[in-house]
Amino acid sequence: MDYSKKALEVHEEYKGKISVVSKVAVTNKEELSIAYTPGVAEPCRKIAENKEDVYKYTSKGNLVAVVSDGTAVLGLGDIGPEAAMPVMEGKAVLFKEFAGVDAFPICVDTKDVDEIVDLVKKLAPTFGGINLEDISAPRCIEIEKRLKEELDIPVFHDDQHGTAIVTTAGLINALKLVNKKWEDIKIVVNGSGAAGSAIVKMLLNMNSKNILVCGRNGILYEGKEGNDALKEELAKITNPNNEKGLLKDAMKNADVFIGVSAPDVVTKEMVASMNKDAIIFAMANPIPEIMPHLAKEAGARIVGSGRSDFANQINNVLAFPGIFKGALAVRASDINEEMKVAAANAIAQIIQESELHEEYIIPKPFDTRIVKAVAKAVEKAAKDTGISRI
Amino acid sequence: MDYSKKALEVHEEYKGKISVVSKVAVTNKEELSIAYTPGVAEPCRKIAENKEDVYKYTSKGNLVAVVSDGTAVLGLGDIGPEAAMPVMEGKAVLFKEFAGVDAFPICVDTKDVDEIVDLVKKLAPTFGGINLEDISAPRCIEIEKRLKEELDIPVFHDDQHGTAIVTTAGLINALKLVNKKWEDIKIVVNGSGAAGSAIVKMLLNMNSKNILVCGRNGILYEGKEGNDALKEELAKITNPNNEKGLLKDAMKNADVFIGVSAPDVVTKEMVASMNKDAIIFAMANPIPEIMPHLAKEAGARIVGSGRSDFANQINNVLAFPGIFKGALAVRASDINEEMKVAAANAIAQIIQESELHEEYIIPKPFDTRIVKAVAKAVEKAAKDTGISRI
Repeated sequence: MDYSKKALEVHEEYKGKISVVSKVAVTNKEELSIAYTPGVAEPCRKIAENKEDVYKYTSKGNLVAVVSDGTAVLGLGDIGPEAAMPVMEGKAVLFKEFAGVDAFPICVDTKDVDEIVDLVKKLAPTFGGINLEDISAPRCIEIEKRLKEELDIPVFHDDQHGTAIVTTAGLINALKLVNKKWEDIKIVVNGSGAAGSAIVKMLLNMNSKNILVCGRNGILYEGKEGNDALKEELAKITNPNNEKGLLKDAMKNADVFIGVSAPDVVTKEMVASMNKDAIIFAMANPIPEIMPHLAKEAGARIVGSGRSDFANQINNVLAFPGIFKGALAVRASDINEEMKVAAANAIAQIIQESELHEEYIIPKPFDTRIVKAVAKAVEKAAKDTGISRI
Repeated sequence: MDYSKKALEVHEEYKGKISVVSKVAVTNKEELSIAYTPGVAEPCRKIAENKEDVYKYTSKGNLVAVVSDGTAVLGLGDIGPEAAMPVMEGKAVLFKEFAGVDAFPICVDTKDVDEIVDLVKKLAPTFGGINLEDISAPRCIEIEKRLKEELDIPVFHDDQHGTAIVTTAGLINALKLVNKKWEDIKIVVNGSGAAGSAIVKMLLNMNSKNILVCGRNGILYEGKEGNDALKEELAKITNPNNEKGLLKDAMKNADVFIGVSAPDVVTKEMVASMNKDAIIFAMANPIPEIMPHLAKEAGARIVGSGRSDFANQINNVLAFPGIFKGALAVRASDINEEMKVAAANAIAQIIQESELHEEYIIPKPFDTRIVKAVAKAVEKAAKDTGISRI
């Protein structure tokens, strides 16, 4: 099916994908006097007396801003805030359809980190949470870090943490299947940008001991020429034996390959050089680091990708709707590491051990059990870590 | 009916009044691939090639930001952005229910004029129009002026222009009834803030020659002690005979009194001192400058107020839904004076001359003819003045 043509038709027919509707009727004088003046003055007064009542009387508590500056949209790059709108509207649609969370696109006309941080902070009274989207690295990392510090509502950069959570969920199940332990395996992460760095941090939280991160010029190590602050930090927390070399060197005797990089950068030879029962998550979109059938031919046991037309799709939609639903439900002040790990475990556990097999290590996007399980796990983790406000 | 109590109940039951919904179905892999990746990349590409296509493929063209800093909310004053949310959500509800326009509350955490201007400009890629709301004077006037200059989408401060348009519409019909001409009448406007100044400018556009504006210290005149820039400008364009005195002096031999001021500041004696067939629009809310029955007893022929429980309600909801609907329909770059006058005439003309009487000079809010008539008139005026982009 030609999704491009059909997508153009649908976007033009509906003129965008979202609509802001009323939850209350306004068809006569009485209803108008309740939804608007004079009645509306009363909830205003209550909130003026106690700011927390904004969660009681307004939409704030279930409202997420999907914020982008349009600098890293899909694989299209820096196409600007207007051109980012279809994606941000799409994200709002997924929030609503998958989790019942109201989300609204905020496409901003600035690329300046300080200005974006400042703007989102000033918009915060309206929203219960902030989902950052398609902002280029390393700016996205700085923006998220500062907003998390300065706001008391959850802030989440989905391109980083959504990807990390679903990758981790898939890996939890894949490791069960090949009967290997986190602390014993060697993992290669190809891609040292925002997603790669978030994945690495989450894998460390899962007790991984031996991670090599590769950038375009091979394995990252401390003090390597060309390291920016992000790469230097990644080098410091990975590569315990200070290895040097190219991706093909990194992959020798690796148990897991995770690609968030570019098409066709992995060869069959590289896969063949990995340990027995190799796990490959080749998530470059739309063309993966290696096509699944080639990876299988080269001896990989489990292969996942970002694509819906192959088995084991690593898809962020498994994570973000339930994560925000859970965080908003308990009015969490943040989305912390414990909540992310809880989400990954909840996604993994959707699949019973008896159902688990090489082509089914991660649940399907339309499995309705996912959102509920993730939200519940996230709520519990927020409460357990003392950042819930309900 | 106790609207306060009922409003609290309704706001709490629904947790706010708006919801962001999807216009497209996302229930299976194909639909997901059209609304989101990979299909969504195609409208993104088109907009990246031609920025104007954002109107073709996204919700922008029918999306209005309802922006407030919460400094002048209803009669409650500076209650902050959180406490302003119920009003801004209510406004969004009215946009949708009356005109099918999608509107979204943007309650901002700053009172600084430069910062608000800057923030709204940076949000502009997402929206087709900006409705400013409940921002205190004189800041609201400066904010609107600068945004109109710097943005190419319609910007409209409803507290100023919505009020001015509906007041003018009412006065058009009232003057027909008493058979007086704009150029012959003496008008007193009590209230020299944002609404008062917008009303004055619109009355001048209608060919009024003799307007006196009163502030708290009586009639405005050039060089009066305590005049700020706004008052000095108002003094310059009104009061042709450089009159001095108090409100009661101004009202002597006036034909029209327009109040956007405070409760009970007009006495029966003042009304009695006006010309025959006096017209009183006492719009202070919830308690008017003089209660309608008292004004009538003192000899006024036509009385309007801001209240729905009296005849002749001067209600902004008659104007803003149709104005934005029309402006968005032709992608107007502004809402100019001609469009406002066209809207006022369209509202007035809803009532046939044969139907016109003292208790019915302005149509009722739920008269479904209004939005269509206003939108059509506004579209035509935009085209005639060369600011439509369709």
